[in-house]
Amino acid sequence: MASVVSDKRGTYVDLEGHTVRKYDFLQLSKIPRLEFDDPNVESIIANEEPVLLVNSNIISSALKWDLDYLKKNLGAGSFSVYSSKTCKFMYYDEKRAKQWPYFIPPTQRIHMKFEEFCSRVRNLKASDSRVYLQQMLDDSVGKNIVKDFLEFKWQWLTEMQRKMNWGSLTSNLLLIGLPGNITPVHYDEQQNFFGQLTGFKRVILFHPDQFKCLYPFPLYHPCDRQSQRFPKLKELKGYEVIVGPGDVLYIPMYWWHHVESTMNSGITTSVNFWFKAGPTPSQITHPLTAQQKVAVMRNIERMLGEALGDPHEVGPLLNCMVNGRYTENNDENDYGADVLS
Amino acid sequence: MASVVSDKRGTYVDLEGHTVRKYDFLQLSKIPRLEFDDPNVESIIANEEPVLLVNSNIISSALKWDLDYLKKNLGAGSFSVYSSKTCKFMYYDEKRAKQWPYFIPPTQRIHMKFEEFCSRVRNLKASDSRVYLQQMLDDSVGKNIVKDFLEFKWQWLTEMQRKMNWGSLTSNLLLIGLPGNITPVHYDEQQNFFGQLTGFKRVILFHPDQFKCLYPFPLYHPCDRQSQRFPKLKELKGYEVIVGPGDVLYIPMYWWHHVESTMNSGITTSVNFWFKAGPTPSQITHPLTAQQKVAVMRNIERMLGEALGDPHEVGPLLNCMVNGRYTENNDENDYGADVLS
Repeated sequence: MASVVSDKRGTYVDLEGHTVRKYDFLQLSKIPRLEFDDPNVESIIANEEPVLLVNSNIISSALKWDLDYLKKNLGAGSFSVYSSKTCKFMYYDEKRAKQWPYFIPPTQRIHMKFEEFCSRVRNLKASDSRVYLQQMLDDSVGKNIVKDFLEFKWQWLTEMQRKMNWGSLTSNLLLIGLPGNITPVHYDEQQNFFGQLTGFKRVILFHPDQFKCLYPFPLYHPCDRQSQRFPKLKELKGYEVIVGPGDVLYIPMYWWHHVESTMNSGITTSVNFWFKAGPTPSQITHPLTAQQKVAVMRNIERMLGEALGDPHEVGPLLNCMVNGRYTENNDENDYGADVLS
Repeated sequence: MASVVSDKRGTYVDLEGHTVRKYDFLQLSKIPRLEFDDPNVESIIANEEPVLLVNSNIISSALKWDLDYLKKNLGAGSFSVYSSKTCKFMYYDEKRAKQWPYFIPPTQRIHMKFEEFCSRVRNLKASDSRVYLQQMLDDSVGKNIVKDFLEFKWQWLTEMQRKMNWGSLTSNLLLIGLPGNITPVHYDEQQNFFGQLTGFKRVILFHPDQFKCLYPFPLYHPCDRQSQRFPKLKELKGYEVIVGPGDVLYIPMYWWHHVESTMNSGITTSVNFWFKAGPTPSQITHPLTAQQKVAVMRNIERMLGEALGDPHEVGPLLNCMVNGRYTENNDENDYGADVLS
């Protein structure tokens, strides 16, 4: 199908029966969809390439986590809900946001009881701000949720963690979103098993070597690890996949990912499993991988901020180090060329 | 006097009775000329600012080092002589030159007996390559030179070294040049007392904060610490001074300097005293000095070369880290802006 629909918020197309945002120019291949016990799964994950695991039962105990079930069982705690005037929910670091001049937060974070969130979702008018619940699961949740959580296929998860030599599981983020909600393209510094519980999401991924086309904000910027702009959209080569209930997508560390809730599958619920990276290999081989280069660039930015004592000095120093020195075509007025040399 | 003379090699003007190269646009102030025992000398050197010391007797035992005296006393060793088709003698690292593709050495280094050098100098025709002797003084020199050397004012030198907390004296370079010979603008990583023995030189200096206008070659380039080009010549703010027999110029570490033998003072002979930098202060205060920023940039370039395993990867990685991320006005085609964000 090639049906195209438009509303105030954008233009949508059909992708395998799912209504998703239309992106011109993007060159996207498919992510492999494999049975979780397919013998190729391990080598793909070991290569840090994304793969969609189907029929895994890893998260099947939570497939019943719709709004009604969660309202009954999630508990009386307070939940972190982002509110946005657009369909985009760009992450930002709240501590850094306060220190960064002229920064306007793209979303607002509010805290509310789960019941209030459900009421907001059910009564949402087109003119209202959109909401996206993003809450780390902790021991404040009700006992049924704890039970479901303990029934995740931990044996498979910890076995994979051991085989891949990853570090500890750091957190499980519960995400509850509305149709059309978008988490803009960014990368994380952890390995991620992204489990889909209700509704469908479309995930677009880019290899870490596409960093040069994605222009992430400076490391000390509140929007670190997110793209600033897309002047090289036509050069980008990526992947996409639709994830549905029960699917688990491996999102390798440093891989860029854009996640959108499809327009025609209702409320989307997802839970992800973030693992720390494994230790740096004792033997480094050259040339470095794209992932290692991203890590090197992050280290340089971090060290410069520390050495200079002010994150806002990192840019001027980097420009001084690069401009006209490492740039091939210096378009500055060169009338003084050779005069003193 | 404002007399201007020109020859095939350039245009010259009169500066305090000395015929020097004419540089348009350069904004140059004077370097202070102080008696070596002036009470201000120490604080100027402690501030790492250049100063010309006169009437110091620091090197007076070597004022007789003209070609005749040196021919008799310098010894039968082999001397390092650079040969250039222009009046410019840009330094380059010979080891790196072999590894750097497409690099054409700006000068040739040859070895010759001192007698041969003298004969080359005396019989030089205008069409010949120019020569510049640059030889580290070592224990192969004749006993009269050793005696003169030992009569340098070492007490003052070592006292200054101690007060400034500099490291050890690493070398003394003997320079013997022809009228009009130029050492193009560069900086050194050592503290330098530059002693003038015969003839006059004009030295132009720039503060380390002028790095951004001087575009030094990449650290791993054979011409590390030298300027690539001068597009910001009009913005440069510098200093100049004429040094004559007996004068000692303090050239602080990381200060840019251009040195030219005047056209009307015959053969120029100089000897410099290079000292290692003092230890890094245990307490770093912010903002960093321009010198510290140069050191930071050098460390980043060095670390990147090591991490990437190939100096030629430093530029692409730095560009990837800076372009469109830390650059304020990104003039790339931005038609994809905001599309994925």
